[in-house]
Amino acid sequence: MTIPSHVKDMLNRIRARFFDSPLHERMVPSDAEFTTLRPVRKATQASVDKYWTRLANTTGAADRNAIADPLTMAMPEQFNANIENFIGTVKLPVGIIGPLRINGLNAHGDYHVPMATTEAALVASYARGAYAATKSGGISTAILYEGVIRTPAFVLENLLNAGLFVEWVVSQVETLKAAAESTTGHGKLVSLEPVIDNNVVFLICRYTTGDAAGQNMVTIATNALCDDIAARCPVALKAWYIEGNFSGDKKASFLGLVTGRGRKVSASVTLKADVVTRSLGTTVQDMLDYGQVANLGAHLSGQLGAQAHYANGLAALYIATGQDAACVAESAMGITRMEARGDDLFCSVTMPNILVGSVGGGTSLPSQSAGLNILGLKGAGHGAALAEVVAATCLCGEISIVAAIAAGHFTRAHENLARHR
Amino acid sequence: MTIPSHVKDMLNRIRARFFDSPLHERMVPSDAEFTTLRPVRKATQASVDKYWTRLANTTGAADRNAIADPLTMAMPEQFNANIENFIGTVKLPVGIIGPLRINGLNAHGDYHVPMATTEAALVASYARGAYAATKSGGISTAILYEGVIRTPAFVLENLLNAGLFVEWVVSQVETLKAAAESTTGHGKLVSLEPVIDNNVVFLICRYTTGDAAGQNMVTIATNALCDDIAARCPVALKAWYIEGNFSGDKKASFLGLVTGRGRKVSASVTLKADVVTRSLGTTVQDMLDYGQVANLGAHLSGQLGAQAHYANGLAALYIATGQDAACVAESAMGITRMEARGDDLFCSVTMPNILVGSVGGGTSLPSQSAGLNILGLKGAGHGAALAEVVAATCLCGEISIVAAIAAGHFTRAHENLARHR
Amino acid sequence: MTIPSHVKDMLNRIRARFFDSPLHERMVPSDAEFTTLRPVRKATQASVDKYWTRLANTTGAADRNAIADPLTMAMPEQFNANIENFIGTVKLPVGIIGPLRINGLNAHGDYHVPMATTEAALVASYARGAYAATKSGGISTAILYEGVIRTPAFVLENLLNAGLFVEWVVSQVETLKAAAESTTGHGKLVSLEPVIDNNVVFLICRYTTGDAAGQNMVTIATNALCDDIAARCPVALKAWYIEGNFSGDKKASFLGLVTGRGRKVSASVTLKADVVTRSLGTTVQDMLDYGQVANLGAHLSGQLGAQAHYANGLAALYIATGQDAACVAESAMGITRMEARGDDLFCSVTMPNILVGSVGGGTSLPSQSAGLNILGLKGAGHGAALAEVVAATCLCGEISIVAAIAAGHFTRAHENLARHR
Amino acid sequence: MTIPSHVKDMLNRIRARFFDSPLHERMVPSDAEFTTLRPVRKATQASVDKYWTRLANTTGAADRNAIADPLTMAMPEQFNANIENFIGTVKLPVGIIGPLRINGLNAHGDYHVPMATTEAALVASYARGAYAATKSGGISTAILYEGVIRTPAFVLENLLNAGLFVEWVVSQVETLKAAAESTTGHGKLVSLEPVIDNNVVFLICRYTTGDAAGQNMVTIATNALCDDIAARCPVALKAWYIEGNFSGDKKASFLGLVTGRGRKVSASVTLKADVVTRSLGTTVQDMLDYGQVANLGAHLSGQLGAQAHYANGLAALYIATGQDAACVAESAMGITRMEARGDDLFCSVTMPNILVGSVGGGTSLPSQSAGLNILGLKGAGHGAALAEVVAATCLCGEISIVAAIAAGHFTRAHENLARHR
Repeated sequence: MTIPSHVKDMLNRIRARFFDSPLHERMVPSDAEFTTLRPVRKATQASVDKYWTRLANTTGAADRNAIADPLTMAMPEQFNANIENFIGTVKLPVGIIGPLRINGLNAHGDYHVPMATTEAALVASYARGAYAATKSGGISTAILYEGVIRTPAFVLENLLNAGLFVEWVVSQVETLKAAAESTTGHGKLVSLEPVIDNNVVFLICRYTTGDAAGQNMVTIATNALCDDIAARCPVALKAWYIEGNFSGDKKASFLGLVTGRGRKVSASVTLKADVVTRSLGTTVQDMLDYGQVANLGAHLSGQLGAQAHYANGLAALYIATGQDAACVAESAMGITRMEARGDDLFCSVTMPNILVGSVGGGTSLPSQSAGLNILGLKGAGHGAALAEVVAATCLCGEISIVAAIAAGHFTRAHENLARHR
Repeated sequence: MTIPSHVKDMLNRIRARFFDSPLHERMVPSDAEFTTLRPVRKATQASVDKYWTRLANTTGAADRNAIADPLTMAMPEQFNANIENFIGTVKLPVGIIGPLRINGLNAHGDYHVPMATTEAALVASYARGAYAATKSGGISTAILYEGVIRTPAFVLENLLNAGLFVEWVVSQVETLKAAAESTTGHGKLVSLEPVIDNNVVFLICRYTTGDAAGQNMVTIATNALCDDIAARCPVALKAWYIEGNFSGDKKASFLGLVTGRGRKVSASVTLKADVVTRSLGTTVQDMLDYGQVANLGAHLSGQLGAQAHYANGLAALYIATGQDAACVAESAMGITRMEARGDDLFCSVTMPNILVGSVGGGTSLPSQSAGLNILGLKGAGHGAALAEVVAATCLCGEISIVAAIAAGHFTRAHENLARHR
Repeated sequence: MTIPSHVKDMLNRIRARFFDSPLHERMVPSDAEFTTLRPVRKATQASVDKYWTRLANTTGAADRNAIADPLTMAMPEQFNANIENFIGTVKLPVGIIGPLRINGLNAHGDYHVPMATTEAALVASYARGAYAATKSGGISTAILYEGVIRTPAFVLENLLNAGLFVEWVVSQVETLKAAAESTTGHGKLVSLEPVIDNNVVFLICRYTTGDAAGQNMVTIATNALCDDIAARCPVALKAWYIEGNFSGDKKASFLGLVTGRGRKVSASVTLKADVVTRSLGTTVQDMLDYGQVANLGAHLSGQLGAQAHYANGLAALYIATGQDAACVAESAMGITRMEARGDDLFCSVTMPNILVGSVGGGTSLPSQSAGLNILGLKGAGHGAALAEVVAATCLCGEISIVAAIAAGHFTRAHENLARHR
Repeated sequence: MTIPSHVKDMLNRIRARFFDSPLHERMVPSDAEFTTLRPVRKATQASVDKYWTRLANTTGAADRNAIADPLTMAMPEQFNANIENFIGTVKLPVGIIGPLRINGLNAHGDYHVPMATTEAALVASYARGAYAATKSGGISTAILYEGVIRTPAFVLENLLNAGLFVEWVVSQVETLKAAAESTTGHGKLVSLEPVIDNNVVFLICRYTTGDAAGQNMVTIATNALCDDIAARCPVALKAWYIEGNFSGDKKASFLGLVTGRGRKVSASVTLKADVVTRSLGTTVQDMLDYGQVANLGAHLSGQLGAQAHYANGLAALYIATGQDAACVAESAMGITRMEARGDDLFCSVTMPNILVGSVGGGTSLPSQSAGLNILGLKGAGHGAALAEVVAATCLCGEISIVAAIAAGHFTRAHENLARHR
C-alpha cells in the first residue's frame, strides 16, 4: 500500500460528508443578489442597532447583550479610532501574575503583569515562573537594539538601472531622511540599506519610534521618503511599492530573526537550585536534559530560533495592554537557553522582534489603559521598559513549561485546570 | 568606519539613559523581600477585590472600573475554567464584515464575520476584500487535511536501542492507539510516525479532534499513549517528554508548513476584472505585478511560505470567537497566489495550520459565544466550516492589501483611519 | 550617516573600476556574430583536438597537456557516458584517512577512506577525527530510512478538480506503481503522497533505488507514472511537470531535513576522555562548551539543522568515489550532537539526505572505481554500507573541527598547512 | 493502520538484512588493535608506495594505476600545499560550453566555460542555455557586493558584561582592524557588527579578499583580531572561539541569503521569443507557467531562495577551476526569476554567496590552472570577473532546465545521454 493510510482516511472523511450532494454544486460561484454592509467609521447607538438587526437571523438577545452590553454602548464613540463597523466588544478575562522582579536597563522594580487569555493554566504557569525568578533575585533585562523596518520595493528597467538607482539614493540620503522624518514627531530614520535582486531594489528603512510600537508611523514616514524618491529620482522607475513583503511585518521571517524588527530584548536569571526543587518540582539537571531534547526538536522541525511558547505570554500581554495581537506572529521567535552555573540554572531569552508601545495603538482604550497602569508603564517614556517586561514575562513562561515537561507535570496541569469546561 | 553607524547610534542611545547610574547596580539580582500573589483558581468578588487592593499603587478607580466593571463582576465565576488570578476583563472592540459568500465543502452561504482588533483600518480593509470576493461569486473553500500533532520525545541509551524501540512501538500501535483514544470522546489517533536522531526518537502523533481545536485533547491522549509505552516497553528509556518541541505548537515551523498542523484549508476566488477596477481601485495587471515583487520579498526575507498579513485576520477572528490567540503564531503561514484567468484575477490562499474549534477553549464565554453565533457556527458540527471561514476571511485580507499596495493606497488608508488617536 | 559605511565603500569600489568607461556601454546586449561550439557526445582524439584549437587564444601547450594529457587521451571514449563536449580531465589530489573503524548495520570493519580535495588541512583534520573515533572503539552507524523523491506537479482547473484528481490518483495507485516500476530493475515506489495548494497538486513519489544513488532512475520512473496519469486521468489537466521544484533535488530544503531524501544515516561514537585529551588536545568539557555556542550560532544564522562542515567530507568523498558532487548542496545538512557520558563524550551525526551509489553515475570511471575499491565497496550490494561510511566520515570531521575550535587550534592548522601556496 | 506503510516497509527492509546476526553484536565498540596511518604532509614516491601497499587488500594494480598513474607520480610534490596523505589523483572529465557572451561589469566578452562532472547531460544542458543566451545578445552581470565573513563568538559572564564588551569593541575598532589586516596583503576588514544573545556575542567580521576566495585569509585575520581583543579587553572573557558556527561557512543559511557571503552577483538576459521556440523547443508562456509552479514548490519545500539547480553549474565550474567544491553547499542558493518583456522572456539569477578566486586554493594546480586559462581569468585581477562568469553559467543552467521541464523534455534528455552506463 503506497498511499499513506492517513491520506486515505482523510479522503474518506471528506467524502463522507457529501455522500449525496455533488461537490461541484457546492463549490461553484453564485450570482445571487446580496446587500453589502454599509460601512460605518463613527459608531453610534443607531449604527450598532442597525448592524444587530442584520445579525438577527443567527443571534439572539443574549448574544447581542454579551457584545453590545450597556456599558460598552454608553460610549461607542470611544472606539472610533480603533475599529470600523463596530458592533460592541468582546471580553477576555484578565489574570495577574507577580510580583515579577526585573533588574533591567529600563524596567526596574517589582511588577504585576496582567495577562488576557481564555486558555486555562496559562496564567498559573507564568505565575509559577515569575515566583521562581523573583525568588532567585529577579530577571536582568536589556534592550539590545531597536528599529521598526519598512521595506519599500522599486522596480527598475534592468540591473544597470538598479545600480544607478542605488547610487542616487545613497547620494540623497540626508534629504530622504528629512522627508521621512517630516511626517513624525517621534520617528527617526536610523538606517537605510539597499538589497538588490537584479532589477528590483528593496530599501530596508529602519526607524526608532519613540515610545510607540510605530507600525503606522514608519509606514507614513516611508511613504514620504518614497514620494520624494519618485518625484526626484533621475533613474526611471517602472513601479514602486510601499512594502515589498520583505520587512516581516505581521509574520515570522529569518530576516527578523537575524536583524531584528521592533525592539530586541534579552532577559536572564540564574535560578537557585533549591528554588528549582521546591517551587518548580524538578531539578536543574532534569531541566538541562530536557533542554537538549527541546533544542534538537527546534532544529529538526525548522523553527526560527528555538523556544517553547513565547506566543502564549506575548498574546496575553499584548491583548491586556492594547498592543496589536497580530504582531504575535512576528514577535514569537527568538532563543531560549539554559546552562548550569555551579549548582544553579542560568536561563535566558533573547527576542529580536518585540513590537510594543506605551502610547498609540489600542493603549488609550479604557481597559487596555488600565492594563498598562497595572504595570505602571502607561504613556510617554515607558516604551523601552514595557519591552523589557514582555521579555521577562516570556522568560517566566519558558522556565515554567520546561520545568513542567521535565517533571512530567505538563499534562496534569492542563487536565486539572481545564476540567470544568 | 567599520562599525555600522546604526550600531553606534544604538549604543549611544542606550548609554545616554544611564549617564550617572552605573549599569551594574541596576542589573544585579536583589534579595529584597517580597510577597507573592496568592493564587486564585475560582474567582469571587472577594478575590478580585483583594487583587485590586494590591494594585492600588499604580492604578486608580477608573482603571479598576474599566477592567472589573459591574457587568463582569456580576458573574466572575463564569471565567473560572478559562483563567487564574482573575481581576476582570479587557474589552476589545468588534467590527463586522460581510456578507462574505463562501461556496465551501463545509462552509456554505453568506456570512457576517466578527473581527476584534484595536488596529484602525483593519476591519475596513477586510470588508473591502469581502465585497470584491462576494461580488465575484464568492470564495470556494475546502478542508484538505486535518490533524493536530503532539510529538513526545524518547531518549534511549544508543542508536541500536532507538531502532529496537521504534520496532516495538510499531508492533504495538493498535494498543497504543487504544490507550490514547481512551482519554477522549472525540479525538482519533490517525497516524503515528517516528523520527529518529540517533538515540532520540520523536513520535509524531497526529489526531483528528472533532469540532474542537483540540490542543489539550491531544496532550492528554498522547500522555496516556506515553504512559503505556513507559509501562510496557521492553527497551530501557532514559527519559521521555510529552513534547519534544517538535510539533510546532504555538510557533511557526517548516514542519507545520510541510505537513500541516490543525486544519489545512484552501480558499480561492476569481475576481472579475471590473470588480478589481471599481471596488479595489486598481487593475488586474497591477495586482499581478505587485504579486511578483511580494513573492520575491517573501523568498529573500526567509518567510515560511509567502503571504501578506494572515495574522491580522487570524488574530481578529480568533479573539472574536474564543479561539486561542497565541495560535496566531503557528497559523499565520501559508501561500497566497494570484494568476491571470483571461481578463480576471485568480487569487488563492492555502493555510496548513488553522487551529479553531466550534466547541471548547474560550468558545462558551458569553461574548465569544455570541461571536460564533454571528457566524452561525457555534457548537458541535461546525469545526470544519469555521476553519473554512477563517481561510476565506484571510483571503479577503490578502486581496485588499495587495490591491491597496498595488494602487498606492495603503498608506493613505492607515493615515486616514488612525488619524484620531 | 544613515547609509551603512560598507554599503558606501562597496559602491565606491564598484564605481572605481569604471572611471572612464560608461557602465551602460558595457552592460548592453550585443548582436556581434559568434560561432557556437559544435556539440560532441562521443569524444574522439579528433573532437578533442578541434576544441583545443578553439581554445588556443587563451591557453598554451602546458594547459592543454594538463587537461588532455596522454593517459586521458589514450581512451577518451571511456568518458562518453558521463560528459559531453569532452576536452580532457581535471586532476584532483586524493589523500586517505584510516583505519576508520565502523560498527554499522551495513558497514562493518576498518576502512581506509579516500578524499579528493584541494584544500590543505582537510585530510589531516579528518584523519585526526578518525583516529580518535577508532581509538574509542569505532563508530556505530545505521541507515534509518531510504527513499529518493521526485515530486511532479499537476495543474488543475480549480480546487474542486484538484480534490477529484487526488481521489482518482489514490484509487489508481497500484497501476501507477506498476507503470513507474516497469522502467527500472531496481527502483521501487514505496510511497506516493499528495500535497495540494489549491489547484496545484504535487505528488511526493518516494523510491528505494537499490545500490544506486538513483536520481535518474526516479526521474524516468516518475515520468512513466506521469505519462500514465496523463493518458488515463478523467480529470482535465491544464499542465503537468516532471518536477515541481519541491523535491529538494540539488539544493538544501526543509522538506529534505524533515522527511529525508536519499539515505538517512545516523552515526555515533563515545570518545574516551583520555583520547580527547591526548589525541585532540582539548577536554571533553571544552568541547561541550563550544558545542553550546555552535548550536546557538546554527539557530541564529538560520541553518537547516546544526552542523559544522559536513560539506567538506561529503565533497571529498563524493568526488573520490564517482558520486555527483552537486548533491553536496542537498546532503550537507543534518544534526551534530554532543553530550557528556560520564567522563566521556558522546558525539553523533544524523544526516537525512545522503545521495550515494556503489553502482551507476561516475562509479565506473577508472579512478573513481579505484576509490570505491579502496573502501571495498564497489558494485552491487554496497550502497547502504557506502552511505554509512559517508556519515561516519562526516562525524570524524565534526569531532576534529569542534576539538580544534575548542582548543584554539583551528587557525593554526590552516596557517601551517596552507603556508606553501 | 496508523503507522505509515513506508515506515513499516523500511523497518522490514532493515531487519531483513540481519536475520540471524543479532544487531547488538554488530554495533558495539571494539577494542581490536589497529595501526593508524602515518600522516604524510610532503608526498614522495616512497610515501605513496607505502600507502598503496596498505591498500592492497581491497585494490589491485589497475586501481593503483588509475589513481597513482605515471604522470601524477612524476611530480607528487606539486600537490603538497593542497593535500595530506597523498595517494594520487582522481580524474574528472571536463566538457566545455560556449561561447557564452557576457556583458558584465567585470566579465566582458565571449567565454568558453570548462565544466567538470560525471553526470551525463549536464554539459549539454548548460551549452544549450549558453547558446540561447548568447543568441539573445548575451548576459548582463554585475557584482553587487562582496565580503567573506568570519563570526567569532565571545562568551561573557552575563548580559551586562556582554553590553560592556560590545561598547569596548566598538571603541577599539580601528586598532582591531589594523590587527586583522596586518596578517594579509589583500584582505580588508570592511565591517564589524556585533550580534548579542544575552551573554554570548558574535562579531560579524566582513572582509574583502582581493582576487582570492579568501576563506583562510579571513580566518587568519580574524584570529589576529580575536587575539588582540583577548589580550587587551578589560571585560573578562569566559571563552572565545574563532567561529561561532554563525557565518554560514560550508553550509546554506538564511544569514547568507540575507546578507551575502563571498561575492553577490546578479546576471540576467532577455531571451528572444524566437530563440526560445527554436533553440529551447518551448514557448515563453510555457516557461512562465512552469516558473509559477516552480516558485510555489520552492516556497512549500522550504528552500532558501528559489532556484532549480545552481549546484550543478557551481560544482562543475568550481572543480574545473580549482575552487573549493565544498563551498557548493553555501553557494547553491539565491533567486531565479522570469518575467514577460513584451513577447520575450526576461530571466535573472541573483546569487549572494559565490566563493571563488582567481588566485589561491587549488587554482595553481596544473589542470585547474588550465581551466582558469580557458576562461582567460587566471591570476591577479580576475576574481570579480570569475564570479560573474559563475553566475552567468548558472543562469544558462536555469534557462535550460526550465525550458526542458516546461517542454516535457527533461526526462528524455537524461534517458538518452545516460543510456550507456
